Amino acid sequence: MPRVSADRSVALSEVITLHDNTVEAHLRRLCDTGRPGARLPSVRDLQREFRVSPITVQRAVRSLVMEGRAIARPGDGTFIAKPATAFSESLDHSWQTAVLGRAPQVQSGLDHLASAPTASTIALDNSFPDSGLQAHHLLTAAAIRSARRPESWDRCSPQGLPQLRAVFARELGDQFSADDVLVTPGTQAALDSIFRVLARPGDPVVLEDPCYPGAIIAARLSGLKPTPVATDEFGIVPDSLADVLAISGARLVVLQPRHSNPTGSVLSPERRTAVLAIAREFGCFIVEDDWVRDLDLDGPTGPPLIVDDPHGHVISLRSLSKSLAPGLRVAAVIARGPALARLTSARLAADFFVAPMMQATACEVLTSPGWHRHVGQLRTTLGQRRDLLCNTLLERAPSLQLRAPSGGVALWVKLPPAMSDSALAAECDRRGVRISPGSIYALTERSEPHVRIAFARSDPAMLVTAAERIADAIVAVER
Amino acid sequence: MPRVSADRSVALSEVITLHDNTVEAHLRRLCDTGRPGARLPSVRDLQREFRVSPITVQRAVRSLVMEGRAIARPGDGTFIAKPATAFSESLDHSWQTAVLGRAPQVQSGLDHLASAPTASTIALDNSFPDSGLQAHHLLTAAAIRSARRPESWDRCSPQGLPQLRAVFARELGDQFSADDVLVTPGTQAALDSIFRVLARPGDPVVLEDPCYPGAIIAARLSGLKPTPVATDEFGIVPDSLADVLAISGARLVVLQPRHSNPTGSVLSPERRTAVLAIAREFGCFIVEDDWVRDLDLDGPTGPPLIVDDPHGHVISLRSLSKSLAPGLRVAAVIARGPALARLTSARLAADFFVAPMMQATACEVLTSPGWHRHVGQLRTTLGQRRDLLCNTLLERAPSLQLRAPSGGVALWVKLPPAMSDSALAAECDRRGVRISPGSIYALTERSEPHVRIAFARSDPAMLVTAAERIADAIVAVER
Repeated sequence: MPRVSADRSVALSEVITLHDNTVEAHLRRLCDTGRPGARLPSVRDLQREFRVSPITVQRAVRSLVMEGRAIARPGDGTFIAKPATAFSESLDHSWQTAVLGRAPQVQSGLDHLASAPTASTIALDNSFPDSGLQAHHLLTAAAIRSARRPESWDRCSPQGLPQLRAVFARELGDQFSADDVLVTPGTQAALDSIFRVLARPGDPVVLEDPCYPGAIIAARLSGLKPTPVATDEFGIVPDSLADVLAISGARLVVLQPRHSNPTGSVLSPERRTAVLAIAREFGCFIVEDDWVRDLDLDGPTGPPLIVDDPHGHVISLRSLSKSLAPGLRVAAVIARGPALARLTSARLAADFFVAPMMQATACEVLTSPGWHRHVGQLRTTLGQRRDLLCNTLLERAPSLQLRAPSGGVALWVKLPPAMSDSALAAECDRRGVRISPGSIYALTERSEPHVRIAFARSDPAMLVTAAERIADAIVAVER
Repeated sequence: MPRVSADRSVALSEVITLHDNTVEAHLRRLCDTGRPGARLPSVRDLQREFRVSPITVQRAVRSLVMEGRAIARPGDGTFIAKPATAFSESLDHSWQTAVLGRAPQVQSGLDHLASAPTASTIALDNSFPDSGLQAHHLLTAAAIRSARRPESWDRCSPQGLPQLRAVFARELGDQFSADDVLVTPGTQAALDSIFRVLARPGDPVVLEDPCYPGAIIAARLSGLKPTPVATDEFGIVPDSLADVLAISGARLVVLQPRHSNPTGSVLSPERRTAVLAIAREFGCFIVEDDWVRDLDLDGPTGPPLIVDDPHGHVISLRSLSKSLAPGLRVAAVIARGPALARLTSARLAADFFVAPMMQATACEVLTSPGWHRHVGQLRTTLGQRRDLLCNTLLERAPSLQLRAPSGGVALWVKLPPAMSDSALAAECDRRGVRISPGSIYALTERSEPHVRIAFARSDPAMLVTAAERIADAIVAVER
């Protein structure tokens, strides 16, 4: 291997077969074959040899320096660099720190999605019904039928399969059609798109206080300002809503009118009317997150809000995660007017379309004779679990205040005034039960501590064990 | 039904059984039972009757007005409103116009995704291999096995199934592990998340000129400024990249190093090295959109760029849409350092996780003995179609300039200098062939007109017919 020096560069260029007869190619070959640390030919030498301008030479040298093959020491010369670090050697990603800046606050309250619980832990922080309550027999049969159809694997319209959209429209009544429906990969994705294209970064978005943490992280992901509105046992407080809209100028309100997460409240008929009137008055969108549509445990609580809204203020989200299975990732947005078109464009830009295989499976299940039977059985089972958990907690932990919710998957439990919700949750954690401290749902400082305890993912024996451990944890925390 | 008047209001309040003895409830009942247009009691009367402050009365009146049950005529009084318009009557969504503002430009160049082609149209604007080239036998078998496993329907980690991530990591070699992989619902979704959380609204993002329109609409959805970098037949031009990074301050570069869409260029080995050196120099991310990984039609074109990058600059996107099926919606992001963690948080906030059923299906297919055979056959078929289309076009339309690309799914065809690409595409459309005008891929004014003609979605007979019609269209446009 020839030793490279400024003096020998002319000779070298004659020896090496020149595939690419440019200054840059010449220098690159010198770097490839020379000893690290050796001086490369001077700009003047190269200029003379190749009969080019100094700018051309400098550009070639800069190119090699940028590739890390050469090192420039101003005033001294240019030298062959050491070979690049081998891949397996220490990887240094520290440069990303400055480029990325501070991490956005997007991962709060949904930790149970990111971390799998250990087998011995009873996860009462999880809203999803357990595997035994998911409609596997319906899903498997529907998926097998769908998998055999070639169109399940081909592209599909960004709005979703027409037959599935028709099913979602029919659920709401004759005044809706498939054209009013957009299929999304879950209601979280729907919230995300709504926050992106029906508001602008920096805009306020009105959320119930307390509210579902997924709405908070979705709002933050789009740069919206979560803005709290007061709620009580009848849902969102209309006067508070009118006030917050007037003060904040918000044009987007998210609420869960039925079995709200976490409080379990159901919006009263008077308030439904009031909320719709306020939406008209202020010209705003009401996002109705109908997260447990199928889970009225004590009889019907009335139709979705959108059914009473002829003017396109309500955007209704229909979830299947709790009543069918969390892994399906198929939900519907029902909306009217330009808003739906804009949401459809946003979904196209964000991920093209929802896997038609999953859409076809959802469609098969929702139109199968077993669907209503499954939902009926699910309601009965969840009602029994709710009652069992309520009664065991009231018996074992009389200092708690709780009311059985008329639907949904969780209890909202008021703690004694001096008790810390996070201390109780931590103590339960140590005893092998995961519950959710109320503060992860809060947008304002709440004076009354709560915890949320889900009853959907545990069988009766586990619920009794969990209630006993929670009662023990309360005694331990009170001490 | 009693007629309502100010004079009779006291009497009425005694007659009606009071469920809710407040001013507001009283007024609501009057509105429900009274004649539209009738005057409601005055503030003074109500104040006297209920012994409350004028503020309380005014708040109650305002509430009814906001609900649309009463109409306030300042200086005159308050009157019962007409009942709300029935749902089926004319729906007026015009209020949305002002709230939403001008539509964002997000729907350009991907129209073929939103509109289904008619049966008689030959869609050479579509990159997806046709149904006959999709691996249906593998997909169906894999999906049926996956559908029977309960975990396919349950929740899953936002990063994706560990076994699938391990498969994607193994493709790249020993230096990668499942921890470096994030599963997304397609590479469009990956681009979207990258644009959202590795840049800030208003930031520039460097895109190849011309480039894939999906990258342009994803950039716009996140409020980034698409910033062009020059390309030629060897891919991105390193000097242009260094210049644009220096001028724009961009920290995000998207490129398709292999069989770039639309030009078909393959990044040369020298340029691979140069691009990585520039990434180090400027501290930026290179997003490698490896959109046709499996479709080297003339032998291997070298490993993905990320294999040569030990420092976490390259974020590699691995698509299955062209080689497996467009409907699967499963892709991988391979990245190192905090960037991957941030992308994972963003996916969690945006849609929780990809349907585990689809992930399990992808994993089964990629590890099945039939996968490599399928890809081999696909390459052979696409190579034959490419040659057939090239030869037929060169024969029938000698004014075109084209070079067979060494991979991918489409030809990039240079038109005679004076010909309009959109005029030719429109003329082809009239003759039942859809092709893509080059201008939908352009970020700058391009002096040389091109069209893109895909050969993946049509059988040989259709390709010959299409080539003949294109040749006829050229004659018609030239005339």
